[in-house]
Amino acid sequence: MEKIKVEASVTYDVLIGTGLLEKSGELIKNKTGVCRAFIITDDNVEKLYYEKVNNSLEKSGFKTDKFVFKNGEDSKNAQTLINILETMADKKFTRSDIIVALGGGVVGDTAGFAAATYQRGIRFIQIPTTFLAAIDSSVGGKTAVNLNSGKNLFGAFHQPSLVICDTDTLKTLSREIFLDGVAEAVKYAVLKDESICSDIDTDIEGAIKKCIEIKRDIVGKDEFDTGERQLLNLGHTLGHSIESLSGYKITHGHAVSIGMVLACRGGEKMGITQKGVTYKLINILKEFGLPTSCPYNSEELANHALGDKKRDGDSITLVIPERFEKCVLHKVPIAELSVFAGE
Amino acid sequence: MEKIKVEASVTYDVLIGTGLLEKSGELIKNKTGVCRAFIITDDNVEKLYYEKVNNSLEKSGFKTDKFVFKNGEDSKNAQTLINILETMADKKFTRSDIIVALGGGVVGDTAGFAAATYQRGIRFIQIPTTFLAAIDSSVGGKTAVNLNSGKNLFGAFHQPSLVICDTDTLKTLSREIFLDGVAEAVKYAVLKDESICSDIDTDIEGAIKKCIEIKRDIVGKDEFDTGERQLLNLGHTLGHSIESLSGYKITHGHAVSIGMVLACRGGEKMGITQKGVTYKLINILKEFGLPTSCPYNSEELANHALGDKKRDGDSITLVIPERFEKCVLHKVPIAELSVFAGE
Repeated sequence: MEKIKVEASVTYDVLIGTGLLEKSGELIKNKTGVCRAFIITDDNVEKLYYEKVNNSLEKSGFKTDKFVFKNGEDSKNAQTLINILETMADKKFTRSDIIVALGGGVVGDTAGFAAATYQRGIRFIQIPTTFLAAIDSSVGGKTAVNLNSGKNLFGAFHQPSLVICDTDTLKTLSREIFLDGVAEAVKYAVLKDESICSDIDTDIEGAIKKCIEIKRDIVGKDEFDTGERQLLNLGHTLGHSIESLSGYKITHGHAVSIGMVLACRGGEKMGITQKGVTYKLINILKEFGLPTSCPYNSEELANHALGDKKRDGDSITLVIPERFEKCVLHKVPIAELSVFAGE
Repeated sequence: MEKIKVEASVTYDVLIGTGLLEKSGELIKNKTGVCRAFIITDDNVEKLYYEKVNNSLEKSGFKTDKFVFKNGEDSKNAQTLINILETMADKKFTRSDIIVALGGGVVGDTAGFAAATYQRGIRFIQIPTTFLAAIDSSVGGKTAVNLNSGKNLFGAFHQPSLVICDTDTLKTLSREIFLDGVAEAVKYAVLKDESICSDIDTDIEGAIKKCIEIKRDIVGKDEFDTGERQLLNLGHTLGHSIESLSGYKITHGHAVSIGMVLACRGGEKMGITQKGVTYKLINILKEFGLPTSCPYNSEELANHALGDKKRDGDSITLVIPERFEKCVLHKVPIAELSVFAGE
């Protein structure tokens, strides 16, 4: 088992290894003590892992309740959040109790935001069950649900008390869902450590560890996302627009894959990115089976970017690789976004 | 104009004086710079003060939008919150913009929570227009809306960037609404400074200043409400139950007035409160015209207290005055709450 210590406004551990779900009760108890645990998961993950986690929690003395919602991005909304909170209030959960988020990014973000806002904040545990959630949403304390007008617009910063990443859960992922994580791992490779690309197929525990350590180090310098943390948005600003324009048919990682290519290619055109970097990135992504072409034109992207959280007046800040392991923030007037949209 | 500096996770000023609404644009601009301002208010306050504040903001260069909801506790719910957030997202407000909360506690708590969660948190300005909001909800960073199952169960800690308290606004309050503030001011008097009671009728600006300084000092030691801050709950734990059992027909301050009497009388029976303190407190409250008798019996109160945020297992922590200016936290088993309910 690997253990990564994250020091934010709350200090917590990320545990990575096999067979951790069976031990989750003990691991959580060591951190929080015995209390009531509200397990939040989706209907897919429930079938696979709920019993294992629930048994372990009960064996360690926790009294548990559960909340299960339909899997998928459509569930990540204010109504699901409020249903969770009303259920917890009906069951008289207190500020001393915990939420356990068991699932992928949708579960983690929604359950984390419930924990951030139930009685103005209670503790929560992340048990990510996808590659993407393991290396991205479960660490860093960003929680949110979507509004009708956009993704993650309703949220809070709230750090988990513990993250338990059982790599056995990655074995049940479909290739498509696994690829969402691959795109995010490639992002970390481009940001800080190219070796992650080869680890993905040979040493997934090592890849996860490297990704989380990179995220931890960046977030540690900028917990509340006002500067350095923006680096983590590589591929995401345009990626979010692509995701949204597709009505979320293009999933997060796939959209980020395309977004990274656009950022690189635009960067080359502007003379920021070294020649050949885009070509190299495209080859890596294609080898995994990730998309690299954007189905939307510059006008569509620019229009959507106007609503992006990262917008600052009439400009938008993009993360652009100068080369692998060296990326910079660059402010681009929305009127000039077209340079990022062409082939 | 009085200025009180509050140092929390954010440092901000509370300004108290007359004629401040007319200057609000300049006062806010000095703190936040020029940006877009989303003014949130209720239909009562809108008629009285919206134009004054909006004109001042526009004169100082702010671009403004407004959101007006129906006055009253019933509006302090998740649906109002979500309507606010969706409107802000539609209008493409960014993380650099601000919310201006213009109104009483319902407006401040709801708008503050919107600011806490819109894009994971933006800045906001409190302009309290009731005595209660001025000395209680506008300072300290507690924001929330109600759930169906209880008051303030859905919320966050989020400090304002500035509080502007124009004492002219208190002149338009009905006696009943003013009395809600009086009960809260008497609470501060019992906690730390008896002289506040006589200031209320003779020097309202001074009374507000004393109350806010007491709250600031207590909150400063315990921003996230895990210890000392519980002192501010004097009269509130039982008060919330009374408020809720009445279907909010008994308003906050009136319920707190009764709650303080119950805490004192129970404390006398338990030998914690000095003899005569309850008698003195009742006389003060009665002189202002506040209620001192509880319309609910011990079983009703105990049942409701089970759902209270401050509950810890089967006990509840009450604030009990030993005497004026000396209060203590006391853990009471819910089964023994009856001692607090009788005459």
